[in-house]
Amino acid sequence: MIYADNAATTRMSETAMKTMISVMKENYGNPSSLYGFGQRAREILEEAREDIAGVIGAGRREILFTSGGSEADNQAILSAAALGKKNGKLHIVSSAFEHHAVLHTLNKLKKEGFEITLVDVHENGLLIPSEVGEAIRDDTCLVTIMYANNEIGTIQPIREIGVICREKKVLFHTDAVQAVGHIPVNVVDDNIDLLSASGHKFHGPKGVGFLYAKKGIRLTNLIEGGAQERGLRAGTENVPAIAAMAKALKEAAAGMDKTSGELIKKRDRLIKGLREIPHSALNGDEKKRLPSNVNFCFEGIEGESLLLLLDDKGIQASSGSACTSGSLDPSHVLLAIGRVHDVAHGSLRLSIGEDISDKDVDFIISSVREVVEYLRSFSPIWRDLESGKKQHIL
Amino acid sequence: MIYADNAATTRMSETAMKTMISVMKENYGNPSSLYGFGQRAREILEEAREDIAGVIGAGRREILFTSGGSEADNQAILSAAALGKKNGKLHIVSSAFEHHAVLHTLNKLKKEGFEITLVDVHENGLLIPSEVGEAIRDDTCLVTIMYANNEIGTIQPIREIGVICREKKVLFHTDAVQAVGHIPVNVVDDNIDLLSASGHKFHGPKGVGFLYAKKGIRLTNLIEGGAQERGLRAGTENVPAIAAMAKALKEAAAGMDKTSGELIKKRDRLIKGLREIPHSALNGDEKKRLPSNVNFCFEGIEGESLLLLLDDKGIQASSGSACTSGSLDPSHVLLAIGRVHDVAHGSLRLSIGEDISDKDVDFIISSVREVVEYLRSFSPIWRDLESGKKQHIL
Repeated sequence: MIYADNAATTRMSETAMKTMISVMKENYGNPSSLYGFGQRAREILEEAREDIAGVIGAGRREILFTSGGSEADNQAILSAAALGKKNGKLHIVSSAFEHHAVLHTLNKLKKEGFEITLVDVHENGLLIPSEVGEAIRDDTCLVTIMYANNEIGTIQPIREIGVICREKKVLFHTDAVQAVGHIPVNVVDDNIDLLSASGHKFHGPKGVGFLYAKKGIRLTNLIEGGAQERGLRAGTENVPAIAAMAKALKEAAAGMDKTSGELIKKRDRLIKGLREIPHSALNGDEKKRLPSNVNFCFEGIEGESLLLLLDDKGIQASSGSACTSGSLDPSHVLLAIGRVHDVAHGSLRLSIGEDISDKDVDFIISSVREVVEYLRSFSPIWRDLESGKKQHIL
Repeated sequence: MIYADNAATTRMSETAMKTMISVMKENYGNPSSLYGFGQRAREILEEAREDIAGVIGAGRREILFTSGGSEADNQAILSAAALGKKNGKLHIVSSAFEHHAVLHTLNKLKKEGFEITLVDVHENGLLIPSEVGEAIRDDTCLVTIMYANNEIGTIQPIREIGVICREKKVLFHTDAVQAVGHIPVNVVDDNIDLLSASGHKFHGPKGVGFLYAKKGIRLTNLIEGGAQERGLRAGTENVPAIAAMAKALKEAAAGMDKTSGELIKKRDRLIKGLREIPHSALNGDEKKRLPSNVNFCFEGIEGESLLLLLDDKGIQASSGSACTSGSLDPSHVLLAIGRVHDVAHGSLRLSIGEDISDKDVDFIISSVREVVEYLRSFSPIWRDLESGKKQHIL
């Protein structure tokens, strides 16, 4: 099996797994309990907080543990909106290709009277910082732009956008679920006020994530109850998962230079090979993208059939986000970068892991080529394209 | 070590642990992914849903997975409130000794214009169903009463309250975090519309829980984003934890008769022994309580010192809820059943597990007696009580 869907979820690292199991077995105490056994769980929790803060350049008290990236996105945006509302600022700037955890939260705020401006995503899958700046108004309370896109992997000019937000005194949130643990992220250097991340995207466990909120930003509770997480997120802390997430992140950060160098070589080999398939196109900028991400459109095919046939060959990939699979609509990300419906339907995302070999890469290329040719051989759209009834776009 | 704080959190059962580890290692796919590896994760997820539904008498589609009991409580109450608001019904009935996940959510709703009636909790820690009925008004949209109290363990007349709610056509939610997996809970027999539960309270993992919502009840999202959980709870499903929770619950349900019979014997032995300590009192009804729960007040001592000294003897216990430890206020539960501040401060909750022996029970009794005597020997309050300056209450 060649698992090439690491953007959907990753296999836990051995270190993360070991930590998780050991804490589950040996330190199952409730960190709010006063006795030593509970306090040891508290120490594990706080050590994890310190480790995570260290990796992204934050302070220990600026890290809040959540059940995952979606919860962190929701809490960050709703918190900024609540602060905005207090000051009569009901405008938010974002982009059309954010994750649904962001877009759907913004839709909810729209119903509550907020106005949302979605800045253009250009054909290369990138935003232009000055255009974000131009969208900011006197009543803007938040700019929320993802660090790296989950489908096409493009890495946004976060630092520049951060500078603009700081200058204009507007809170800046970034959904960094695909970035943290994969590329260097530093909240101070990047001028970030709020950041969301998810454990299972960097070889940590599922069901755990974190929200960074710069000191002084008052967060709104999503989950009311006990006084855990300084009263900002109720519920017994998921200590084993939090400890494992911290280990996974530290490990990812320590190996990042080496890993990403190797991944980029594999990624570029994959891009080069897939480009040779006629009427195909890479989605998103060739260089400003995650080391792990390759995303292609192939004319005349359906992405779902492509995936199922690749699965038969032992290759796991996706057409875009796992969170929207099963939906018949084409990817909102591909539409945002200007792909037309027909083309957007024929997408393939490969998000490779460190364990992939050149041989695997070559096998993926030949398999995709074979499957695309096969699917085109009985595709009515492809017939129309080849007969000239429809115009080729790619 | 004698771990007697199972109401705070439990050790995962061997079966739950094995399941968790195996799913983390072998089935880490994203259940939303189309390929076989993802679909196997989906099957595990749906099997867990079916198993959990089976234990509480629900339908498969009536179970929604959450990050824990607090999230489930929040979502249940906010959903019922949203439905109420639509129909102009802004009144909720609850009780003063609910968990903070319920009380704080109700406080939030108060600020949004809801009116909350808290039905009396009687001295024995029990509600009277007819009094709940009398509190229901034409504009009541929800009754939320916990199944078993987390501090004093009293089991409420849920079935009777359910019947009244059904007759009066008011939604009935129960925070069953302490009940599920410990005593028989059946949502049909008990006339329950919404129920919250938490994995780590019945030897499942932390960071996972579930919400039962009767078919036809429209839930409000707490966490917006992907289409997971039929669009009602976004975020990649925590498959390993969900699978482990299901195994733990099935195991607990299968062994419940035997386990609770044995626990009740130990519990009653503990109650009998602790009662012999002068000026002590059991909190909550002697019989209508969880098989695992013993909660005492001792005059003239501070609960925290008692805990720390018991910890020195290898006994882990708590003064009440772990979620509020560190707070200087006495337990709101003990105040609700009429304990005065001084007495409420000297509380001890022992929540025993299946592994406890008669020898352990006797060791707890002699340890508590010794520590209480020791603490009283230099307590100013005790001196006042003994000198007659203050009146004994217990």
